[in-house]
Amino acid sequence: MKNILIIGAGKSSSSLIKYLLDKSEQENIYITIGDVSVDNAKKLIGKQKNAKAIQLDVFDQENRLKCIENANIVISMLPARFHIEVAKDCIKLKKHLVTASYISEEMKALDSKAKENGLVFMNEIGVDPGIDHMSAMQVLDKLREKNAKLLLFESFTGGLVAPESDTNLWNYKFTWNPRNVVLAGQGGAAMFIQEGTYKYIPYHKLFRRTEFLKINGSGNFEAYANRDSLKYRNVYGLENIPTMYRGTIRKVGFSRAWNIFVQLGMTDDTYIIENSDKMSYRDFVNLFLAYSPSDSVELKLRSYLKIDQDDIMWQKLVELDLFNPKKIIGLKNATPAQMLQKILEDSWTLQEDDKDMIVMQHLFGYELNGEKKQIESSLVVIGENQKYTAMAKTVGLPVAIAALKILKGEIKTPGVQLPISKEVYEPILKELENYGIKFKEKEVPYLGYNPNNVIG
Amino acid sequence: MKNILIIGAGKSSSSLIKYLLDKSEQENIYITIGDVSVDNAKKLIGKQKNAKAIQLDVFDQENRLKCIENANIVISMLPARFHIEVAKDCIKLKKHLVTASYISEEMKALDSKAKENGLVFMNEIGVDPGIDHMSAMQVLDKLREKNAKLLLFESFTGGLVAPESDTNLWNYKFTWNPRNVVLAGQGGAAMFIQEGTYKYIPYHKLFRRTEFLKINGSGNFEAYANRDSLKYRNVYGLENIPTMYRGTIRKVGFSRAWNIFVQLGMTDDTYIIENSDKMSYRDFVNLFLAYSPSDSVELKLRSYLKIDQDDIMWQKLVELDLFNPKKIIGLKNATPAQMLQKILEDSWTLQEDDKDMIVMQHLFGYELNGEKKQIESSLVVIGENQKYTAMAKTVGLPVAIAALKILKGEIKTPGVQLPISKEVYEPILKELENYGIKFKEKEVPYLGYNPNNVIG
Repeated sequence: MKNILIIGAGKSSSSLIKYLLDKSEQENIYITIGDVSVDNAKKLIGKQKNAKAIQLDVFDQENRLKCIENANIVISMLPARFHIEVAKDCIKLKKHLVTASYISEEMKALDSKAKENGLVFMNEIGVDPGIDHMSAMQVLDKLREKNAKLLLFESFTGGLVAPESDTNLWNYKFTWNPRNVVLAGQGGAAMFIQEGTYKYIPYHKLFRRTEFLKINGSGNFEAYANRDSLKYRNVYGLENIPTMYRGTIRKVGFSRAWNIFVQLGMTDDTYIIENSDKMSYRDFVNLFLAYSPSDSVELKLRSYLKIDQDDIMWQKLVELDLFNPKKIIGLKNATPAQMLQKILEDSWTLQEDDKDMIVMQHLFGYELNGEKKQIESSLVVIGENQKYTAMAKTVGLPVAIAALKILKGEIKTPGVQLPISKEVYEPILKELENYGIKFKEKEVPYLGYNPNNVIG
Repeated sequence: MKNILIIGAGKSSSSLIKYLLDKSEQENIYITIGDVSVDNAKKLIGKQKNAKAIQLDVFDQENRLKCIENANIVISMLPARFHIEVAKDCIKLKKHLVTASYISEEMKALDSKAKENGLVFMNEIGVDPGIDHMSAMQVLDKLREKNAKLLLFESFTGGLVAPESDTNLWNYKFTWNPRNVVLAGQGGAAMFIQEGTYKYIPYHKLFRRTEFLKINGSGNFEAYANRDSLKYRNVYGLENIPTMYRGTIRKVGFSRAWNIFVQLGMTDDTYIIENSDKMSYRDFVNLFLAYSPSDSVELKLRSYLKIDQDDIMWQKLVELDLFNPKKIIGLKNATPAQMLQKILEDSWTLQEDDKDMIVMQHLFGYELNGEKKQIESSLVVIGENQKYTAMAKTVGLPVAIAALKILKGEIKTPGVQLPISKEVYEPILKELENYGIKFKEKEVPYLGYNPNNVIG
């Protein structure tokens, strides 16, 4: 019997744990789930055998080492910044490791030690990053095998509310960490390349530079650019590709309205508002508008950001009850971003029978035998319920599948890595199809950004 | 004979050195000027006696200590971040210190040690900070002595080009460190309070939230808000004042045009542009605009930022030669801010016979015997030439006067401080008048932001 240690039993662990429990008999594995609070872990295990929940504080080194010692592989579902201590223990105790987070510089530094010890340290194997890497590399490798010349790669992902639960004017609810949504796009200009021309978008323009996209059968979406698309040229082996763009998907119209918050300064997380706890929603809005002894907050906002009377953006603000002078924010020493999050959570929290949705689309433009072509590859996953959400499935299942395959020696190339090699993505993508996570691929006309080959 | 050590002989040291040299006989002082390069220091000394220039690298601790040992007082004109090492030496060797920079946390931490040793560590005694503090405190203290209730304090300063040298559409040239001008306003939201209401302006809106001001005899100006006006409530003893605002002065129309650079993302200093050295001015602009195979950079920019054909802002851009495809920026691994600075320096560098100007205005609103009143206090200083600029005079003279008065024991309260006590500002402001640095004070009607006492 082999032992799997899962550290952290948060929202995205449900599908991960279910997968492993369902396989536990057949694969002869035993699962230990360690968390600071055992309640959620116990709920996820239910009455199944071959598993136990234990109390594990990741800062308690002694206990951490003891738990890892007993495992054959460790899955860390902790927030990204906590992986590194677990990873160092895994080196010391010679255990494999799986995480769904981006590879940090510190993690990368463990690469040679992992290799020396024959350990697989698999990272970025959730949904984004994760399924995006695998599904992109599968098509890219196929095209490269055919000797196609790659012209364009665009990749979009979004965590949204499912159409059947889409009940507000924003077409959006929080299906993931609300804080990340409020801070999205901050920390530097977005960078990408189009037809060989570098493009940079500052944060305060990001939500007005969206591109529209259509996903078959799921309607119209828009996407804003992710932070750094340029670095993915190396990761995917596309050093000389003229167009490379990664973006985040929202329903059409979301970004233009979100831009109001950005323009006002409400998404700023770098300073604290005096007396934040006593402010009403209306007071909060007024902080960002010019002083007037008599003009209304509403008119000041309309005038400042030039919002016409017939602009649906306005109704989106009203829907959030943003101008209510009686609702109190009630957060002490809060930043504008924290106050905004509080207001949004009133309206955007998933209700008990709401479902979520993950949408992904890749576009691959290429030239083969003198002909320009394009492949469009799309994924839509709808959550089952609030426990087995689309997010939990798409994050947890690839992690679980990878962990089991590493345990069984089917994935064995050692080192700190992300899932871009065939050994990894091929079997995992195949198995994900059994769980309804399957891309639809089709050929579309190649357009690029310069369909008529104009020389600018 | 007493020894004064001046460390750093940059642009703002000319008037400082001249003042001390002119007084050297009468006051029996000897001046040593230490700089990494002695050339500029030697030029500033000329044929005068009672002074010498020495080579001094501030990172050479041994030599630094030796120089400070021989002095009775040290004036540090280094960039702000280098003061602290000099300050620590001054504690060790028991020497007074004068700087024109904001008090850093590290500097503040030396306060008790300075006091124990009876040392005056005078900071923020240039123009802004410096003359602004002194002139404001003089009026505030007078009003407080009369038991006036303070309602409003607004303070504006600008370093501009003198009217006789004002030859471009921006009404602006670099009279100070160009890098600071390009980065002005960054690093956090501007904060102030108006009629008891906190106001926060994010960077990307700062240059559209200017206020107009009139300075008698010198025409119309505008001001954008400084970073943190709130903290000056404590510094000036105005904890409960309902309106507190500090701003930076520009000629009317500058900020609206500058906002174009901000909106495009050209003032960003946080990332490096690939191939920056090979880019033309036009390529640089195009980095921040959407890709098009055929549309011109000009039309893309006009359309993106909605600049009408008859908007003078457009001519301001053309004047900078911003669309030139042949002028190459030629800076390796440069940030957008560095590239923009390079372009602006072509047009905004002071010519040999250009003069600069310092403009300052304070507004003091108060209530006395049931009546609301306002004092307007303004300063305009025009530079003599490129050596004795208005900037050099207004920064260097208060530093020099303070240093001499500390040396003579006329300013003697010890500790790390800024010039807000009567002991300091009264004699210095008086002496500055001999050099043409004199505020004009007048009574104006009190308006505030709510002249009719509307309850909002």
